[in-house]
Amino acid sequence: MIVVLKPNLPLEEVEKVIAEVAKLGYEPRPIHGKVQTVIAAIGDENTHQSLETLASWPQVEHVHRVQKRYKLASREAKKGGDTIVKVHGQEIGAGKKFCFMAGPCSVESEEQLMSTAKAVKAQGATFLRGGAFKPRTSPYEFQGLAKEGLRLLSQAAKEYDLGIVTEVLSERDVELVAAHSDILQIGARNCQNFSLITEAARSGKTILLKRGMSMKIEEWLLASEYVLANGNPNVLLCERGIRTFETYTRNTLDLAATAIVKQESHLPVIIDPSQGCGRADLVLELCKAAVALNADGLLIEVHPNPAEAWSDGQQQVDFGLYAKLVKELKPFISAVGRPI
Amino acid sequence: MIVVLKPNLPLEEVEKVIAEVAKLGYEPRPIHGKVQTVIAAIGDENTHQSLETLASWPQVEHVHRVQKRYKLASREAKKGGDTIVKVHGQEIGAGKKFCFMAGPCSVESEEQLMSTAKAVKAQGATFLRGGAFKPRTSPYEFQGLAKEGLRLLSQAAKEYDLGIVTEVLSERDVELVAAHSDILQIGARNCQNFSLITEAARSGKTILLKRGMSMKIEEWLLASEYVLANGNPNVLLCERGIRTFETYTRNTLDLAATAIVKQESHLPVIIDPSQGCGRADLVLELCKAAVALNADGLLIEVHPNPAEAWSDGQQQVDFGLYAKLVKELKPFISAVGRPI
Amino acid sequence: MIVVLKPNLPLEEVEKVIAEVAKLGYEPRPIHGKVQTVIAAIGDENTHQSLETLASWPQVEHVHRVQKRYKLASREAKKGGDTIVKVHGQEIGAGKKFCFMAGPCSVESEEQLMSTAKAVKAQGATFLRGGAFKPRTSPYEFQGLAKEGLRLLSQAAKEYDLGIVTEVLSERDVELVAAHSDILQIGARNCQNFSLITEAARSGKTILLKRGMSMKIEEWLLASEYVLANGNPNVLLCERGIRTFETYTRNTLDLAATAIVKQESHLPVIIDPSQGCGRADLVLELCKAAVALNADGLLIEVHPNPAEAWSDGQQQVDFGLYAKLVKELKPFISAVGRPI
Amino acid sequence: MIVVLKPNLPLEEVEKVIAEVAKLGYEPRPIHGKVQTVIAAIGDENTHQSLETLASWPQVEHVHRVQKRYKLASREAKKGGDTIVKVHGQEIGAGKKFCFMAGPCSVESEEQLMSTAKAVKAQGATFLRGGAFKPRTSPYEFQGLAKEGLRLLSQAAKEYDLGIVTEVLSERDVELVAAHSDILQIGARNCQNFSLITEAARSGKTILLKRGMSMKIEEWLLASEYVLANGNPNVLLCERGIRTFETYTRNTLDLAATAIVKQESHLPVIIDPSQGCGRADLVLELCKAAVALNADGLLIEVHPNPAEAWSDGQQQVDFGLYAKLVKELKPFISAVGRPI
Repeated sequence: MIVVLKPNLPLEEVEKVIAEVAKLGYEPRPIHGKVQTVIAAIGDENTHQSLETLASWPQVEHVHRVQKRYKLASREAKKGGDTIVKVHGQEIGAGKKFCFMAGPCSVESEEQLMSTAKAVKAQGATFLRGGAFKPRTSPYEFQGLAKEGLRLLSQAAKEYDLGIVTEVLSERDVELVAAHSDILQIGARNCQNFSLITEAARSGKTILLKRGMSMKIEEWLLASEYVLANGNPNVLLCERGIRTFETYTRNTLDLAATAIVKQESHLPVIIDPSQGCGRADLVLELCKAAVALNADGLLIEVHPNPAEAWSDGQQQVDFGLYAKLVKELKPFISAVGRPI
Repeated sequence: MIVVLKPNLPLEEVEKVIAEVAKLGYEPRPIHGKVQTVIAAIGDENTHQSLETLASWPQVEHVHRVQKRYKLASREAKKGGDTIVKVHGQEIGAGKKFCFMAGPCSVESEEQLMSTAKAVKAQGATFLRGGAFKPRTSPYEFQGLAKEGLRLLSQAAKEYDLGIVTEVLSERDVELVAAHSDILQIGARNCQNFSLITEAARSGKTILLKRGMSMKIEEWLLASEYVLANGNPNVLLCERGIRTFETYTRNTLDLAATAIVKQESHLPVIIDPSQGCGRADLVLELCKAAVALNADGLLIEVHPNPAEAWSDGQQQVDFGLYAKLVKELKPFISAVGRPI
Repeated sequence: MIVVLKPNLPLEEVEKVIAEVAKLGYEPRPIHGKVQTVIAAIGDENTHQSLETLASWPQVEHVHRVQKRYKLASREAKKGGDTIVKVHGQEIGAGKKFCFMAGPCSVESEEQLMSTAKAVKAQGATFLRGGAFKPRTSPYEFQGLAKEGLRLLSQAAKEYDLGIVTEVLSERDVELVAAHSDILQIGARNCQNFSLITEAARSGKTILLKRGMSMKIEEWLLASEYVLANGNPNVLLCERGIRTFETYTRNTLDLAATAIVKQESHLPVIIDPSQGCGRADLVLELCKAAVALNADGLLIEVHPNPAEAWSDGQQQVDFGLYAKLVKELKPFISAVGRPI
Repeated sequence: MIVVLKPNLPLEEVEKVIAEVAKLGYEPRPIHGKVQTVIAAIGDENTHQSLETLASWPQVEHVHRVQKRYKLASREAKKGGDTIVKVHGQEIGAGKKFCFMAGPCSVESEEQLMSTAKAVKAQGATFLRGGAFKPRTSPYEFQGLAKEGLRLLSQAAKEYDLGIVTEVLSERDVELVAAHSDILQIGARNCQNFSLITEAARSGKTILLKRGMSMKIEEWLLASEYVLANGNPNVLLCERGIRTFETYTRNTLDLAATAIVKQESHLPVIIDPSQGCGRADLVLELCKAAVALNADGLLIEVHPNPAEAWSDGQQQVDFGLYAKLVKELKPFISAVGRPI
């Protein structure tokens, strides 16, 4: 770590900081600059206590970490290149076939789910999404069909040979949800619910880890580290919009994050444009950018009749728009060199 | 709700929207303006489906809600004025005695905790804070002493007659943590973990509900609604800093939120200046503002030796600074007309 | 406008608001809902005083505008479809040939500028960018070569037949800068410097209007309205990154804004990926997304030796990377159906 | 500066970076850690070129500055303690008498201005604020009375012996505005309009420098450095709300910034609660916090009849509320130990 001291600090004060750095297990190497002294503290930051606590000392101006805090999620950690997640017979990541996950925001009824499954399957989707447990901002809003929703998802998956991706909200439901799905979604609101993430990781299912609304990239990768460090290598990172000052859209889809994450990590990236902007009329354009940025898949909300959806109708596309979208993405999928 | 249509829309298109508004259970009242038509949809927004789904229609420009989404948390809901939470023999809220909750970020050892309990008790604190379960951004950081931490908290509480406020991270630990504490803290990372909030609410303990890092006031009050709607009236709202672009501080303490929440709601407000800025050297000044804004209490991190703390040392104040702080706050507590 | 009143307001209080709405020149139409009354105020919001001032009344909960605040910039305003800006012999916008604007952050020397102009021209750029007047966060940083920089730009433009885009910082320099350039850039820091924007608009030159660091889309379009309303139809909207909480990048390039602006407005959109992320290693990927989102051009910082650049070296690409970038973009330009 | 290299970099690559550091004028001191090498670059960062350009090199992970970028504005720069600005017979800063600046958002008419001047003078204000030139988001909104507004301000100042604070929007108006005022306000939208700031600084008048909507503290102090470095020591830093995700208020008043700025700098701090939240009903509470945080003054919008104000009526307080506010602040002013 690097401990930057205040300007023009008396030598005896510098010595006190040096002594504390040594006491905390690092080898201190002071460098005396023109104006202020910097102490390089040698030692593995991931096994020693952080020196950031020293920032409370009156002698200290800043403390900078040197090493990255994530290990298993980092590009350096994986010698063989990008991770390929194999799930429900599909390979996701590393330039493999582009993956479409589509379906309603919430599972509402057999008719709604089966018709949607049929429609998205016809357009080449390989995973059906649909919420059985819904995290709703208000306790008075529809909270999902729960078990009955999971049963319908299983039925649809079987009928149309689709993998299932669905959210789990409670540690206590992990086993149940895992029994009915291929990919467990950890939602944005639970992105730092480490109890739930750990429990989900241990199920052995693939984890789709949504980025939190105001999560730094570093924090997102550290959340994925909770999955990886629990012995589950199958993580899909899902960008779904961050919170900014803009009010024309519900969230600001941080497409650029794809490029950053692909540099920092070997994990596949999925983009959720529906949640990402909260407006059905922008979804198609955002998908094009996601493909161009080499995302590995899309998670898209599709509903037979969005205006009458029980949740988030404004961001769900109908079957016609979904078919148009899949068709218009093809040249971009070709442009990034992926099979369609 | 108010449905604003696109400018210069043909009448037959207006009619389609009116029909859908009626179908969804509202009484539509169109108002034809100079440029565009607005449909006032009469009906209780909290029992009908939201018309916000109509925003996906090409005829519709915006949909505005009219009613507030929170009921029990709203000022209007409580005829008798501000809520007073009674816990461990103290009344919090409604201008009652100002409440000091103080203690270490994490419980580290018997010596650390007992010395801190003694020090804060001597300065008039009535609650001891301390984390036994710690939500850490990285899986490689100290995760708390867990049960042993709870045991130490109980020991300190008994010895110094202090109430206990401590965080619960998992639904499965609610019963255990409730058995060792007076106030269950729901942390910022779990502010929309509705499974945990509901479980904690049902324990009957007072809930200290931290605001999430990028939580709107409306969302915070709706999270508190999950506690209230589960039959637990004892909620303390705790502001602990929001995430902004500023990098001099870890978070931006949103002091102004106190004024807004006090207008919107009857619930007591606690300020956490330690987490709120992440720097011990700013804590005293921020506390003065919190008192002036009529907050009902403070949650302050205090440690015998912050530089050697196992977590967040840079934001913990030592015993000397804590004593100074309590002393310097007295004129401000008098200025707001509260007993000290 | 829509004036939403507080719940359960006595009728005489409702009447007072109605009277004020009428006094301010609107025709009030009250709608009495289950819980609260809403007053639809009929009248042209762009010629009457805003009723938003009524939000200070104790009877009033919210005031919503109905009409959009921008007129000339809105898609509805332009019957003939997208604006095509014709400048230096090129057409920009409406699916026309994709436009490359490239060059150094700052003009530093004849050698630096001429070599860069040659390199970007060889790759098909039609505009040379380069700062002669630099807005620097610190007064102690390099402020640009000023007039000498403009002279060098003119020389390079002549030698390589390139259009010039360069920033103007002061109303007093508008005439001078206009004499040496084809496109006047209004930088992010001056995005609401309406004196400068108006003066620049009146020069008759094409205006490249950068989005401010925390500018809402509505505000950006209203800033463009200052150009249009001063009789200059030639505006290029340039997204260059917004300020968020993320620290891995200098700014967060809001690629999704392209899709929104293209819906709201007829004006061409240019993306600046260099400023947008502040990191040369991300520029290529971001450019692909910009093309896929149907942006009309790119503004890219290119330097012969970025490490020794006098400003912002970390975000400038060298000649080799620029050539690679242009080559790799071609399939995406084809995918959106534009000539290369 | 500190140059952090990538992990496990071959020695010959380390050598290349060391050579470049030396070439750019610094003395490189490499420290070889367990995982990666760090190069401490010794040299005055404020006279040498920044090494931040090296961040574009593939060998480099981060570059950290060591020194602060502001000099004259920093606390260290002023040996004699806090700056006291003397203007219109009043001393502002360093615990001196608390300063009230009050008046309408815009100057609208003689009657409006004179009645407001009288009302605020009666409550002890020493400065009259009022906009003659208004920066409006839309070109169709009221832009201020310009010269006539200035004339009215002079008339009111003379009649009621008040200092004048008013905004200047254009370099060309600096001389004119300076002739009619005591304090020149640089608004949030021009916070990095360095041409205007420099011109205003050179007028010799006291500069009230508003913080930009998304301005980091460092950038704000650097903007003040443009005034100081132009030989004008009389700067008042004015916090007026930052832009966040919250929608209940127009801006989020960053009260905590007061504490930070007071640590970093010797300059006086003024708080603008009116612009800071955009709601008259919150102004009083926010003022209490401002006083408690040891701000040196308040800039408050006051209007005879806010509902009919020509701009921003929702955030202006009327005479009655203003009188209440001044009265209720007295105990807090006493609590910070200032004369009232």
